[in-house]
Amino acid sequence: MDISDEKAAEMLHSLRIFFEENIPFNKVIGLQVASLDLENICVRIDMKETLIGNPVKRILHGGVISSVLDVTGGIVAMAGVIKQMEGRTTDEISRRLLKIGTIDLRIDYLRPGEGEYFLATGSVMRTGNKVSVVRMQFHNDKDCLIAAGTGTYIIG
Amino acid sequence: MDISDEKAAEMLHSLRIFFEENIPFNKVIGLQVASLDLENICVRIDMKETLIGNPVKRILHGGVISSVLDVTGGIVAMAGVIKQMEGRTTDEISRRLLKIGTIDLRIDYLRPGEGEYFLATGSVMRTGNKVSVVRMQFHNDKDCLIAAGTGTYIIG
Amino acid sequence: MDISDEKAAEMLHSLRIFFEENIPFNKVIGLQVASLDLENICVRIDMKETLIGNPVKRILHGGVISSVLDVTGGIVAMAGVIKQMEGRTTDEISRRLLKIGTIDLRIDYLRPGEGEYFLATGSVMRTGNKVSVVRMQFHNDKDCLIAAGTGTYIIG
Amino acid sequence: MDISDEKAAEMLHSLRIFFEENIPFNKVIGLQVASLDLENICVRIDMKETLIGNPVKRILHGGVISSVLDVTGGIVAMAGVIKQMEGRTTDEISRRLLKIGTIDLRIDYLRPGEGEYFLATGSVMRTGNKVSVVRMQFHNDKDCLIAAGTGTYIIG
Repeated sequence: MDISDEKAAEMLHSLRIFFEENIPFNKVIGLQVASLDLENICVRIDMKETLIGNPVKRILHGGVISSVLDVTGGIVAMAGVIKQMEGRTTDEISRRLLKIGTIDLRIDYLRPGEGEYFLATGSVMRTGNKVSVVRMQFHNDKDCLIAAGTGTYIIG
Repeated sequence: MDISDEKAAEMLHSLRIFFEENIPFNKVIGLQVASLDLENICVRIDMKETLIGNPVKRILHGGVISSVLDVTGGIVAMAGVIKQMEGRTTDEISRRLLKIGTIDLRIDYLRPGEGEYFLATGSVMRTGNKVSVVRMQFHNDKDCLIAAGTGTYIIG
Repeated sequence: MDISDEKAAEMLHSLRIFFEENIPFNKVIGLQVASLDLENICVRIDMKETLIGNPVKRILHGGVISSVLDVTGGIVAMAGVIKQMEGRTTDEISRRLLKIGTIDLRIDYLRPGEGEYFLATGSVMRTGNKVSVVRMQFHNDKDCLIAAGTGTYIIG
Repeated sequence: MDISDEKAAEMLHSLRIFFEENIPFNKVIGLQVASLDLENICVRIDMKETLIGNPVKRILHGGVISSVLDVTGGIVAMAGVIKQMEGRTTDEISRRLLKIGTIDLRIDYLRPGEGEYFLATGSVMRTGNKVSVVRMQFHNDKDCLIAAGTGTYIIG
């Protein structure tokens, strides 16, 4: 009755394509899913001119950071749902994933968004029947913690 | 010892230009400062393909909403500082405005981001010596409340 | 098919008794439901020695403020559910009210908690099928805004 | 130029006495500082009748949890300031500690507050010149994560 690693891997691969290719605004900010399995999710963006929020300091716009952390938390919540639904059909799982959405988000801006690229990670604090709560981190290429967040997602 | 209406108007005009023209990511999302005086701040964005976060429902990306609310709260905090510094020179006020930054942000996603354009407003809950706290709202063109937020800004 | 004013009034009266009399910690802090109808909810506490959080400044403990705002938001969410369930039986409504719980809470501490008594109010930003989002305010006896909050409640 | 271990230990001992003995509301909820050095802070409360928030389920009141997490985050922020002020006099450090206060707090209620006792811990995400940001956790006696939080504290 376990979700096969193969089936999970397939779903996660589809998720990656979906988030990278099918969501227009993710393409605008250049969001890449750097790694994605049921235990580790890592999202990456590369610094570029259009993402700057402070033309003097040349740092990332806070909205880029919150966008990336929101998406990262959502993918982490989705992975949690896939794990929770071990043994269900791909169809059942897909239908549930489609309903997932952000309820609320807290972002803490800790240090200036300086760097050539940035990595966002997250971990589930709770996957319930209706709500998932995720903590996220946003580091730069020097492993400096730029921002952190907490997101609450509706999952059922 | 009052800040002259003229001086305040000039500073606010500069702020508007700065936020609309000089911040690359604001230009990417098409952020416009629709109205801006010491009492009323309104920020607008128009729906466009690149801002979509859900290709099926064709609604705004949550990150666009949080970007706009973060900027709106920041401008509201700046207007609060300008009011607080009545009687000071433009230079003194400008130096203080440059230091303003977001400490943290909470966004509540209430309804799908459907609409042709969106308006964000905000009001100060407290302007202290070091910190300003602002509540923000994000409505669509039918005056439906799409999202709300609270931002804490360092101001001194 | 409307909820009769009488039935709603009865339910709200029961809620008031429940919150004031049956919840031990609410009695510890002296929480009173000062007014309660479907449109206006006001919760009151009186300053007393045991609620102090800073013995030098003799101001309210932040935890008292968050406790009162959490309860206030919960009652506001409950009133929203009662309105939403117009036409249903008291039993159906009661069963749903029993499931309501806080998902998350943000509290902004704006000014020192000085005063002889304090009033907390709140208003619903959205009552969905599963989640309700409420904004709360906490004023002192001089109508000074001491704290504000946002709460997300599971309601179904 | 280092803060001596002895001096830090003395200050932390005073902090412990202060939080346990001198703050009336902490005594009401039975808050104990279970361990306190510059790297590890743990706050404990024991379940008792008066802390109950749901008389049917006999679980902790959400306000007790937020009270404990707020205090825990504050102590963690204080330890961060003591570390940051290595080499300064006890007087200088004490004066700064007295100014520390909560700006805002987010609490995520993850699971029912069941248990005989509860432990709260926290870690600094950033100690700046003006603001400290802390993440907190609240576990029960079975090491189950009951709640989590993030607090922003003014520290200078």
